[in-house]
Amino acid sequence: MRQDHLISATQLSRPDIEAVLDRAAEIDADPSALQGRHDGAILGLCFFEPSTRTRMSFDTAMKRLGGRTIDMGSVESSSVKKGETLADTMRVLEGYADALVLRHPSEGSAKMATEFVDVPLVNAGDGAGQHPTQTLLDLYTMRQNAGLDDVTVGIMGDLKYGRTVHSLAAALTNFDTRQHFISPESLRLPRGVRYDLHESGAQVREHTALEEVLSELDILYVTRIQRERFPDENEYLKVAGEYQISAEDLEAAKDSLTVMHPLPRVDEIAPDVDQTEHATYFEQAHNGVPVRMALLDMLLSTEGDR
Amino acid sequence: MRQDHLISATQLSRPDIEAVLDRAAEIDADPSALQGRHDGAILGLCFFEPSTRTRMSFDTAMKRLGGRTIDMGSVESSSVKKGETLADTMRVLEGYADALVLRHPSEGSAKMATEFVDVPLVNAGDGAGQHPTQTLLDLYTMRQNAGLDDVTVGIMGDLKYGRTVHSLAAALTNFDTRQHFISPESLRLPRGVRYDLHESGAQVREHTALEEVLSELDILYVTRIQRERFPDENEYLKVAGEYQISAEDLEAAKDSLTVMHPLPRVDEIAPDVDQTEHATYFEQAHNGVPVRMALLDMLLSTEGDR
Amino acid sequence: MRQDHLISATQLSRPDIEAVLDRAAEIDADPSALQGRHDGAILGLCFFEPSTRTRMSFDTAMKRLGGRTIDMGSVESSSVKKGETLADTMRVLEGYADALVLRHPSEGSAKMATEFVDVPLVNAGDGAGQHPTQTLLDLYTMRQNAGLDDVTVGIMGDLKYGRTVHSLAAALTNFDTRQHFISPESLRLPRGVRYDLHESGAQVREHTALEEVLSELDILYVTRIQRERFPDENEYLKVAGEYQISAEDLEAAKDSLTVMHPLPRVDEIAPDVDQTEHATYFEQAHNGVPVRMALLDMLLSTEGDR
Repeated sequence: MRQDHLISATQLSRPDIEAVLDRAAEIDADPSALQGRHDGAILGLCFFEPSTRTRMSFDTAMKRLGGRTIDMGSVESSSVKKGETLADTMRVLEGYADALVLRHPSEGSAKMATEFVDVPLVNAGDGAGQHPTQTLLDLYTMRQNAGLDDVTVGIMGDLKYGRTVHSLAAALTNFDTRQHFISPESLRLPRGVRYDLHESGAQVREHTALEEVLSELDILYVTRIQRERFPDENEYLKVAGEYQISAEDLEAAKDSLTVMHPLPRVDEIAPDVDQTEHATYFEQAHNGVPVRMALLDMLLSTEGDR
Repeated sequence: MRQDHLISATQLSRPDIEAVLDRAAEIDADPSALQGRHDGAILGLCFFEPSTRTRMSFDTAMKRLGGRTIDMGSVESSSVKKGETLADTMRVLEGYADALVLRHPSEGSAKMATEFVDVPLVNAGDGAGQHPTQTLLDLYTMRQNAGLDDVTVGIMGDLKYGRTVHSLAAALTNFDTRQHFISPESLRLPRGVRYDLHESGAQVREHTALEEVLSELDILYVTRIQRERFPDENEYLKVAGEYQISAEDLEAAKDSLTVMHPLPRVDEIAPDVDQTEHATYFEQAHNGVPVRMALLDMLLSTEGDR
Repeated sequence: MRQDHLISATQLSRPDIEAVLDRAAEIDADPSALQGRHDGAILGLCFFEPSTRTRMSFDTAMKRLGGRTIDMGSVESSSVKKGETLADTMRVLEGYADALVLRHPSEGSAKMATEFVDVPLVNAGDGAGQHPTQTLLDLYTMRQNAGLDDVTVGIMGDLKYGRTVHSLAAALTNFDTRQHFISPESLRLPRGVRYDLHESGAQVREHTALEEVLSELDILYVTRIQRERFPDENEYLKVAGEYQISAEDLEAAKDSLTVMHPLPRVDEIAPDVDQTEHATYFEQAHNGVPVRMALLDMLLSTEGDR
């Protein structure tokens, strides 16, 4: 990977992805290997929207590399409130940091920001747009647990609005996977996403019920169905209830089924699943650290070579 | 001390307490002795309620040990708002950090959290429950200034709701102390706490006026009477006024009297006390650093030995 | 500079200022020269008002020196909400940190705080009072771009309320500068500030239109005119519009004109100025890091000698 920014998972080729995942696996195998490697380097955390998991795992990743972080804090406590543009904020912050991580509610904001900054910038979510490091840690978790070739993946829940899902589905087309999409009719994959998947030659099928396909799956990726997508509370409850899984539901699955979730979950996955061998969502969250360490190490090293 | 978590002061025996205090005293004597000892280690700060003193002294303690911290930030800016359970949040964060500090408004939450995490966890206050590191720094301050055996301790203020007070009183039964409790009738020690103290063989007496006992005291521990405990503002003002001390009040005390307060104070202790030799509350706050350094060092070293 | 605190730019003589700027220039020339110099030292960030730029550049500066920072967080999440006085808060925090940075809405608060703390304290803005590190980075930027002697400086915008402007104007009297003040009648320099400038022998002129003086200027320092200063929205729009500059406006200026702004800007400087050689405001913001590194290094080294 020879680039300065990571804005979208779509900019990554299969070799790019594998380079990050291989590096992450090396780090996982020997977490102290990179300790002190980026002593003195500073990562700027610019989160224009709240975030626990993503912010804290970037923070952890940078510190595990020996680096430091500076945090913009919440929008309420920043000069954004005084009417500063995103471009100005980022141009100031690039003078403080050796790399920047940006989360912003507007789609396209991360791409726009790269026009103004010279240090490496990582998109940590731009509204309905991209969240490429989530995709990388999802792929890493899949590869560690089930492999990325000749596997059958089910993706269930809110397939219409979930940026995580669109990005993951696109990235999976780089590998030899069969993709099954399971959702209520009203939350199907958007037409554009389906079109792109077909164009790329992906093997894709859609379902409205998990039991149609559960027994075939090597990986089941569950996402949250958000209450606010439904005008009617009863409609929400009816739909959401059909896409929740329990330990009992999973008795029909392969023993080796890997269950993933980007978290936070509310009640899509019952607590009794946590005790099964299927549960991989906490491991998945933890994988954010080695994957982001790998990525930051690569971006900061590229930077150093300039 | 051979354990993984610190949840309650009641889990600590006299030798456990003395081990922490001795280590803290060594650190105080030579603050640089432990510098760099935990290079690369990460402490997760999980404060579900606001905190300045406790949060910042844990932060300082970890950094003085050479370690790093990651901060969950306020609940408003976290995934808790999205309905995530405490158990899920803690299971994610244990993947980022080598130890965790938890403050949470619900009594019993810290104990519950230990069922889900494998890294050492320190309770930094669970509602009306425990706050054991406050107790340790209180004991440390007492020992440095007046000793912990053959001393007469007065504890004054809100004895009914103050978790600090209950925890301290229980811990003092490990030592040869005489305990005097001074409060308005309506804010007496709860019956259960009194019962436990008597059971443990403690020498305990209760008073409604400080002057009944002031001249006997080696240590006076003052706590804040909170306005919100009283339905009637006038009742509050009358009661609170009787449990405030000034430099003049302390003329009847021993010259060596040590005055403590967990802070923040409002008007329980007049500013003119600050200039007297009695005032020990800022030193007490500062003792949070060596005591928490000692504790973290012991927990992280135990961890390393696994 | 042999002192413990930095409260006001007025306490700095020309040699004091030059010592800081010289050190900052050395740091700029070789950013790694001071790396690790203050390993283990802790800077406490006490911001009682929101701040992005100042807080983050102090944070960066300390970390570039090898030190750590602890952050009080917002007032909402601190014990200030419980009624603690500033004096008490600072007395507690000095026990955690080797130096403190304070921003507070009340004029005179930083000076007052020095009566209670023994560690070096830097004023990062006290209401309508002083913000001396802003002045130092302004002077540094001027010296790097146009020199500080035999230069003509224009200061434009809100000259009545802007503490940045008052502090800068006073500091410039240490150097051989000609100062031009450009503002609407209603936002002229306060009489007291004008008086002090005249007393110090400064060459000062006032204008209501930039074109009266633009062609003479070596430096143009623009500040924001705040909407809330005007009771009437239309009045604001009329006035503000006259003190905005575009690339076209600057065609009448010297090629070497340096345009500065303390940021954040709203629309005082059009985006097309950013692409001109005049634009120096992002460089100015970035200069906060080496200047604050120089200052912290000097204060912490003084501290170490005690």
